[in-house]
This record gives sequence, C-alpha cells and structure tokens, in this order.
Amino acid sequence: MTTNTPPSIHSLDTPALLVDITKVQRNATTMIQRCQQMGVSLRPHMKTHKTIEAGEIMTNGTKRHIVVSTLAEAEFYANHGFDDVLFAQPLTQDKVQRCAQLVAQLEEFHVMIDSSSGLDAISSRPLSRKQWSVFLKVDCGYGRAGVSHDSADGVELVKSLVSTPGVKFAGLYAHCGNSYNSDSPEDVKAVGHRTAQNILAFAERLKQEGVESPTVSIGSTPTCSQPADSMGQLTEIHPGNYIFYDVQQSLLGSCKLEDIAGRVMTRVIGHYPQNGHLLVDCGWTALSLHSLGQLPTGFGIIDGHPELKLSSMTQEVGKVHAVEGTLDFDKYPIGTVLKILPYHACATACMHPKYYVHSGENIVAVWKPCRGW
Amino acid sequence: MTTNTPPSIHSLDTPALLVDITKVQRNATTMIQRCQQMGVSLRPHMKTHKTIEAGEIMTNGTKRHIVVSTLAEAEFYANHGFDDVLFAQPLTQDKVQRCAQLVAQLEEFHVMIDSSSGLDAISSRPLSRKQWSVFLKVDCGYGRAGVSHDSADGVELVKSLVSTPGVKFAGLYAHCGNSYNSDSPEDVKAVGHRTAQNILAFAERLKQEGVESPTVSIGSTPTCSQPADSMGQLTEIHPGNYIFYDVQQSLLGSCKLEDIAGRVMTRVIGHYPQNGHLLVDCGWTALSLHSLGQLPTGFGIIDGHPELKLSSMTQEVGKVHAVEGTLDFDKYPIGTVLKILPYHACATACMHPKYYVHSGENIVAVWKPCRGW
Repeated sequence: MTTNTPPSIHSLDTPALLVDITKVQRNATTMIQRCQQMGVSLRPHMKTHKTIEAGEIMTNGTKRHIVVSTLAEAEFYANHGFDDVLFAQPLTQDKVQRCAQLVAQLEEFHVMIDSSSGLDAISSRPLSRKQWSVFLKVDCGYGRAGVSHDSADGVELVKSLVSTPGVKFAGLYAHCGNSYNSDSPEDVKAVGHRTAQNILAFAERLKQEGVESPTVSIGSTPTCSQPADSMGQLTEIHPGNYIFYDVQQSLLGSCKLEDIAGRVMTRVIGHYPQNGHLLVDCGWTALSLHSLGQLPTGFGIIDGHPELKLSSMTQEVGKVHAVEGTLDFDKYPIGTVLKILPYHACATACMHPKYYVHSGENIVAVWKPCRGW
Repeated sequence: MTTNTPPSIHSLDTPALLVDITKVQRNATTMIQRCQQMGVSLRPHMKTHKTIEAGEIMTNGTKRHIVVSTLAEAEFYANHGFDDVLFAQPLTQDKVQRCAQLVAQLEEFHVMIDSSSGLDAISSRPLSRKQWSVFLKVDCGYGRAGVSHDSADGVELVKSLVSTPGVKFAGLYAHCGNSYNSDSPEDVKAVGHRTAQNILAFAERLKQEGVESPTVSIGSTPTCSQPADSMGQLTEIHPGNYIFYDVQQSLLGSCKLEDIAGRVMTRVIGHYPQNGHLLVDCGWTALSLHSLGQLPTGFGIIDGHPELKLSSMTQEVGKVHAVEGTLDFDKYPIGTVLKILPYHACATACMHPKYYVHSGENIVAVWKPCRGW
C-alpha cells in the first residue's frame, strides 16, 4: 500500500519551500471574483512564483492574459501553451530579437516602452506578418520607470507610436509600487485611487488627441487586494504576489497571516545555550535577506512560535533566539521542524529550484519555476 | 570563419554573471602557493561558486579534499569524480541516510558534529563495511555553531566519539566568521591568530587525554588571505570566497578590487531625469540585497564608474543615481553596458543558474552551479 500513500511534508529534506495548494487556490479565486465584481479584467503577474502550475490557477485555467518580468519567463510560458503575454520592462535594443520571436510564436505578445529610444528599438526590427503590440509604461507616482503621467512627453510618445508603421498601441500600464510604503489600509486605497485617477486622466488627454487607449491597467498586490472604488473605471488590473502573499502583505492589510501560502520548512540542527540561540538549516539561500531582519520576529515569522526570533542568517544556517527572556531549549529538540512565513514571498520563492506543494500534510505536487533571464 | 570566433561578452543577454577566468586561476594559485609556504593543507570550500570547474581549479586538478555546505553539493561533487568531501554542517538524524550513501560512494566522506545528539544520529545508522569519519565543529569565538573551545564538553564529546564503534575521529574544524567584523588587516590577523591558538589549545587538551587530532583546520577567506604566523601550526585551512573575492573582501584587505573575478553585467534600460536616476536591468534577483546598500556606491561598485551609485533594486531592475550632484544622462545612453562588482560574491553567485566565464572579452565557458539542498 505504500506506493499509494502520498509522501508527507515531514519526509522532506530541509530547507524546503512548502506551498499550500488550498491557500493558493483560495487566493486566486478571491482575486478572480474581485475582478468580476469590479468589472475589470485580471492580467496576473507571474513574477512571484514563475511556475506553469500557478499560472494556470491564476488565469482560471485559460493560460491567457499574463504579465512577466523577464524574457526567460516570457519564453517559458510561451513554450507551455500560454498566450497573450506582456513583457513588462522598458524594451531596449538588445532584447528586441527575442521579443520578435515571441511575437511570431504567439497570438498576442506585448512589449512595453517609456521612451522614444524604446520606440526606435522596435522600429529597427520590422515584423514580416504582424505588428508590434506596445504598451506605454506610465509613472503615476511610484517614481521608478515610465513616462510621467502629467507631462506632455507621454502623450507625444503615444502619438509617435500610433503613427509608426508596423506598431499598434495596446494601452497604458502603471505599477503602483508606492503602495508598499503605506502605513494603513486607507493609505493603500489612497495610492490605488491616485494611480487610477492619474492614469485615467492620461487616457483622457490621449482621447482628446484622438487616441483611444484599448487597455488602462494598474497593479500591485496591496492596491488590488484593497481596491479603491475608482479602480472599477480601469479596464484591467495586474497584481502578482497575492497568489502566495507574505508577512509584508499582511502588514499592509492585503491579507491575513492565514492566507500566506508559502513557508520555508527547516529543522533545528544545533543548541548553543552559551549563546542563547538554536541553529536551523535555513540560511539566506532559502529565505533571502528581505525584511533586513527588522520584524519583531527577525527575518520572518516562525509559524506557531511567536516566542521565537530568526535573528540572523548566513549562507545555509540561521540563528533563532527567544523574542524575550531565555530560550527554553527543551521545547525545541534537535530535529524539531519549524516553518517560516517569509517577509517577501517573491524573494523567498526566487531562492528555490523546487516548490513542494501540499494539501494538509501530503505532498501533492512539485513545481519547478523558471530561472534566469 | 564566424563559427571559430568565440562569442563576446557583449553578445550576452543581461543581466549576466561574468567570471574572469584569469582572475579565478590567479586567486586559486595564490592560495595554493600560500598554503605550500605555510606548510598547511588546503581544503577549499565550494560554497561560493558550487561548480565543478572552479572546484577543479581550487584543488589544482586533483578533485580531492574539499568542503561543501549542503548535501546537494556533496552529491554533486561526488557524482563528478570528487573525493575526500567534508559536509560542514552539524549533522542531524534527517540527513544521516544521504550521508551514509556518500560514505559508501566515496573513498573519504566526512561529516561534522558538535553535540551528543549528532553522535547519536550517526550511531543510529551503522555502516556495513566502513566507519563514519567525523569532524568536531569547534567554536573558537565566532559564536555561531560548534562546541566551545574552552569548555569541557568538547573534550568529553571527542572521548565519546572515539569510543563509539564504527566511528573514527577525523579532526577539529572551526570557522572564523568573526573575521568579517574586523576593522583592519591587523584585526583580521588577530582573529586568525586567536582562532588558531584556541583550536591548537583544544587539540593539546585532547592529546593530554590521549586523543590525537588527525586534522586541525580553520578557515575564512579574510584570515586565510592575510594569515597570522601561528596559522602555520595548523594542519589545514579551508577558505572559499577567495576564488571570486568581492567588495566586502576588498574592504577587509583580503584582496584588491582588481582581484574580484565575478561581476554582474547589466544594461541601462531607462532614463528618468525628473527623478535623477537611470534604470538598469539588474535587480536583486541578479545581485542579491547583500551590503544592504550601505556602500558609498550603494549595493555594489559599478566597475570604472565611481561617480555612479546603485541606490536601490526591485526584483528585476535597479536605480542608479549620481554619487554627487546631477547625473549626466548623455554619458550613459540607453543600452550602455555596466558591470557591477558584488558586495558578497557567494550571495550574488547564488542568484545565477549560469556563469559566463570569459578571458578578456571572449566567453570561453559556461559553468552551471549546483542548486538546492
């Protein structure tokens, strides 16, 4: 009968990234239903997990209408039956050839520009049977990339774009990364509202110039988890992290701790009472250094153990202290399994060549993410 | 003739990890010669690069006598003809079975313990034709793992070890990670000296109990790059990072900036004069967050551009500002190639599924590291 028994998570070598399939599906369903209620399309971002399987769940099985952050991801999804893929990085000359191949391969492959240099790069590589489908990246207050939503440059660039042979205008795209600096759910909603207002105003200015924007899209997991009413006027939103969520998102009000689908399983491998710490086999190769250790519990939250603090990590091990007072080592014998909720799921997932997908204690699948560029 | 022309690094998609083979070989040769002069064995650590090729170079082609930080590495090297492999993490019950397989596979495979729990784990899995070869991990002041060099526990543990059937005592092993907290080359030497003195004193106490320590080994790239004279009394040193070196090591005096063999090649993908920054296609997926951005030049050093600061990174992109004053965007057109010297080479290498090995501008090899656990 052993062959029919699914392996247990407790049989895993540590460290290991556990992904709770029930929570993944629930997080995906919640976002799909939210978009239906808001009357906007969902174009989920793949960057957090970079797996085919989570991509299928996020697209409700359609394998259509996704965003990716690297060309390696774009090719990975294209080669696994996904279509309508947007590569959401300002396109430069060096990446044009690989993009042209993706345009040829897929029904819909979209690129993004935010400068005349980007438009020049595309124009330099005319396509034989298709047009380039191009989003304009708009900066609505985040200050990382994109044309400023309130400058004349953006409108001029779209006008150049629509008048360039072989190029079609796909729409406007903004990332509200500034939502990560919010102090409260109200702040998050305010960022979502401002971003929506800014990009809608930009679309309106374009319209006055005679250019319709087929898509008006904004995204970030905080703003899409707690959407402002005005976001209902958009055509599309594109969050990504929500499929796993993490401690950072819980602090922003995007989710509860029990919605976090990914955790790093580790084991206690040493007791050092003279130094007040125990050692676990989870270093920054497994969790990443994100959060910089500044949570009250250090670099993450040890599930079910609010009394423990992951104080520091080196390459393959981490030190765990008591949050307060003296550590009771007898409670955590060598070999004890601990599960760490990551501060930043995108960063933690990025460290793992395999994700162990489980339902309860049973491993039901192993997902292998795309890596590289 | 094109087929005979090696590809240039400039043909690479970015981001990409470049590894300068000339510097790798020079760093390896310097450490080999230093050990010969000191009269100690070199047991190089593989954790920084985790590749077969650099392992061959570090072992001077012998493929013998190495340290690894994970069981995945141990198996990777064992399956590629390496032997005499030490798995340098306190061994626990869950990892015993894989270790037993490595003992069977190799002529010499060593494990490490620092508690009676570790010894129990080994004893619970007797080997049919071989003995377990066991190092004792000793804490000589670093405070991470190991038995305290000055407590009675360590001596008692070794006495238990030598009296356990099927187990042989391989020696003493200490990591002087505290050398990374040094302020000057003198400090580094002092840490090396203290660590050597502490572990030699421990070996002497063992001797008084009638137990010879076949190996007395300490390591860390700072202390092994600037060794104290007393380290010549050891039998072995085990540095690892020196094969690549990095900005952190240059600040500790372990190397000069020109010895750094690894760098992340990236391209300028956007100009945002309104925010004073340009964007590069290197985020924390390519460089890691190590250094926490606290260098005068931010998260790394942009080779040949002391006027530039890598101020922040998100997943796939980084912002570059002027260190002082206003950025002259005309000097860095979109598409400009920049090369970033990493703060911590172990962490940066860990982010890359491939290393592009070059001699001058020519790519001469692609190395694929071991990943996972």
